[in-house]
Amino acid sequence: MEFMTGVAKKDTLEISEILSADYEGKNIKVQGAIHTIRDMGEVAFIVLRKREGLVQCVYEEGKSRFDIQDLKEADTVEVEGTVKMEDRAPNGFELRLDTVKILSEPAEAMPLQISKWKMNTSLDAKLNNRAIALRNIRERAVFRIQEGITRGFRDFLYGQGFTEIHTPKLGAKSAEGGANLFKLEYFHRPAILQQSPQFYKQMMVGVFDRVFETAPVFRAEKHNTKRHLNEYTSLDFEMGYIDGFEDIMAMETGFLQYTMKLLETSYARELKILGLTLPKVDQIPCVRFKEAKELVSKKYDRKIRNPYDLEPEEELLIGQYFKEECGADFVFVTHYPSKKRPFYAMDDPEDETFTLSFDLLYKGLEITTGGQRIHDYNKLMEKIQKRGMETEGMEHYLSAFKHGMPPHGGLGIGLERLTMQLIGEENVREATLFPRDLSRLEP
Amino acid sequence: MEFMTGVAKKDTLEISEILSADYEGKNIKVQGAIHTIRDMGEVAFIVLRKREGLVQCVYEEGKSRFDIQDLKEADTVEVEGTVKMEDRAPNGFELRLDTVKILSEPAEAMPLQISKWKMNTSLDAKLNNRAIALRNIRERAVFRIQEGITRGFRDFLYGQGFTEIHTPKLGAKSAEGGANLFKLEYFHRPAILQQSPQFYKQMMVGVFDRVFETAPVFRAEKHNTKRHLNEYTSLDFEMGYIDGFEDIMAMETGFLQYTMKLLETSYARELKILGLTLPKVDQIPCVRFKEAKELVSKKYDRKIRNPYDLEPEEELLIGQYFKEECGADFVFVTHYPSKKRPFYAMDDPEDETFTLSFDLLYKGLEITTGGQRIHDYNKLMEKIQKRGMETEGMEHYLSAFKHGMPPHGGLGIGLERLTMQLIGEENVREATLFPRDLSRLEP
Repeated sequence: MEFMTGVAKKDTLEISEILSADYEGKNIKVQGAIHTIRDMGEVAFIVLRKREGLVQCVYEEGKSRFDIQDLKEADTVEVEGTVKMEDRAPNGFELRLDTVKILSEPAEAMPLQISKWKMNTSLDAKLNNRAIALRNIRERAVFRIQEGITRGFRDFLYGQGFTEIHTPKLGAKSAEGGANLFKLEYFHRPAILQQSPQFYKQMMVGVFDRVFETAPVFRAEKHNTKRHLNEYTSLDFEMGYIDGFEDIMAMETGFLQYTMKLLETSYARELKILGLTLPKVDQIPCVRFKEAKELVSKKYDRKIRNPYDLEPEEELLIGQYFKEECGADFVFVTHYPSKKRPFYAMDDPEDETFTLSFDLLYKGLEITTGGQRIHDYNKLMEKIQKRGMETEGMEHYLSAFKHGMPPHGGLGIGLERLTMQLIGEENVREATLFPRDLSRLEP
Repeated sequence: MEFMTGVAKKDTLEISEILSADYEGKNIKVQGAIHTIRDMGEVAFIVLRKREGLVQCVYEEGKSRFDIQDLKEADTVEVEGTVKMEDRAPNGFELRLDTVKILSEPAEAMPLQISKWKMNTSLDAKLNNRAIALRNIRERAVFRIQEGITRGFRDFLYGQGFTEIHTPKLGAKSAEGGANLFKLEYFHRPAILQQSPQFYKQMMVGVFDRVFETAPVFRAEKHNTKRHLNEYTSLDFEMGYIDGFEDIMAMETGFLQYTMKLLETSYARELKILGLTLPKVDQIPCVRFKEAKELVSKKYDRKIRNPYDLEPEEELLIGQYFKEECGADFVFVTHYPSKKRPFYAMDDPEDETFTLSFDLLYKGLEITTGGQRIHDYNKLMEKIQKRGMETEGMEHYLSAFKHGMPPHGGLGIGLERLTMQLIGEENVREATLFPRDLSRLEP
């Protein structure tokens, strides 16, 4: 009988393996995709693309035992050759080729020049050929950084005693109701796609005290802007036994500190490729909503038009203000007006027209909304009635409160927006693997 | 100006903190939900539920400075008292109470007896009161184990050079087409919910070589069985530069080995609560589909009715066979018939009626489907034409192959099924936080 016993060591090497030992002068095997070929007659440079970066291979006429004409871009190959330290090559070494085995071949030439350092291509062209465009070294690095953010979020929260949950995306009714829901038929019943795990994560605070989820959310908003998506990945957490909504902001600050360190140590390669300097997150300033509006109005001589909400331009100016005044990339804006927050937001006992809530702005863009929630069943019902809302479809949510819930709060972070700001892009689609917007449902 | 500087130490303690130092005789503060109260007149035991387990608190008339009548089940409280080692208490200590501060109160009594060790309640009653039922110590432990599985999957694959991806769940057309798709309207265009990240993860092999995703998938199947869900969490990976589909099985074996170790070390508490013994995964037997059918037919005297598929009963018997013959809980069944596998499955060059694919059975239930995929564009087109399929909606998928793809393969694991088998339950809903089935769209 045959048995599987686990992962066996391959006889081909990855870049980090080659760099971790002394392979100079040794004969090794490497697999990869042909990224470029620069044929100069008697010598040719064949650059392989591997998951950890590029490997420069050298063909030498008379020495290499294959015909350089048999190779073309986008072939995947297994090569054998001798390692030679070479400062000018990527990762400081090259491979003097002996033999090549072709593993697969493309059927057509590339539609985009992915081997250029910066692709001189429109966003639309990149998105239309996403699976090809991402083979560019810089383009794909963005999504390694994105991995680091998600990973940092989870690892930090595991360490803080949070439990990871998976809540359903198909539902009968949603957390925050209304117009922005995608609707569908579920076995002859009307259903919706959840725009947030809000209700579920709150219910689970009664079970696990602290929970988080990293999952897609769906918003049928008809916004067609550089910062909106109709499907995105939301990093959500919710925690019980808080003393105030500041505990939530402290936890988010901790997440950012942990994640920047993780990126620095485990994603240095990608940071270098993208030429990024990580933001400082040792301390993040906090400012009240009302005060922020006034500060910005005063400093930049701008009229306050809507006292209940921040316009995108105001968010940008708040970002600019705190960058100029204290060198901060992030700023917590707190105490949002009650009428612009959902019913479950806890009002400020000192002034009930405001809430114990916050947004986190990063370079002037909202990347998080969070705050303390109402935990008392009777107060929650009061607020629902005051707003003239129906409780239909919320029975299960309300039941959790009826049977006791600790003081709690939480937040949701837009992963693509956070990635976009970190990499310094202007369009959230640059930080989305396969964006969904008003016009884009493919690829 | 106020600043957030990260997570501050709380002045209340968690169970692991109390156990990690000598607190005997010391006065400490603890927060939690009142799980039970056993009032015996002059003494009362108040058991608190915390995320790490239960804490036994002792009220003593004349010593404790509060009225025991003020407390009730499902209150959340902050208590202050003196630590006393006590073998009969959960975690080996109790708290002689001094004071209690009530943080929140329920509005109604519990609908379920969650403080019982085993809840004597139907699955339906548990699911109808999910947020309450999960407050039971055993019920919630299931989802801690589930966390460990997902975490093991990710951590193992990070270590193996995989990149985590987030692919869209809204799409224009699906990987494997057809009848089992939920349909919806997306800004006046027809759309579907993805039943698998198949196409996307394959496309991303051309970018990152190795990728994985842990995300919801949606299947509009009208099955109403103990092992089907209409929405579940799929643990997917796809890897390039494989020598054969055995590399995929080896990687899955490695994942199981890593995860069992993680559960043993980091989830010992939950394993103990559930009384679980972890399965052995040092070696997993492999058997060909055809041979498996014959072995089972012979040993259990059972006629082979459908040579192209495994009936659920046959899967059970294959599980039984390998348990009896070599003590294995897991078995890889390989070389499934081509006609039962999707078009992208690679046929076995030695006999094209079979494929280089596999299922992993765990205690006789399929928890994984995987295999090698066709990587050559022309062969993929041939197979599509042979099957009389349309390529409409697959242009982007096919484009990745047109421009070169390494030999690759992958798999998808049903998280809830794997959890169900591990905890020894009969119904997959027991291992799903909020199941979605033919009749259940709430809570």
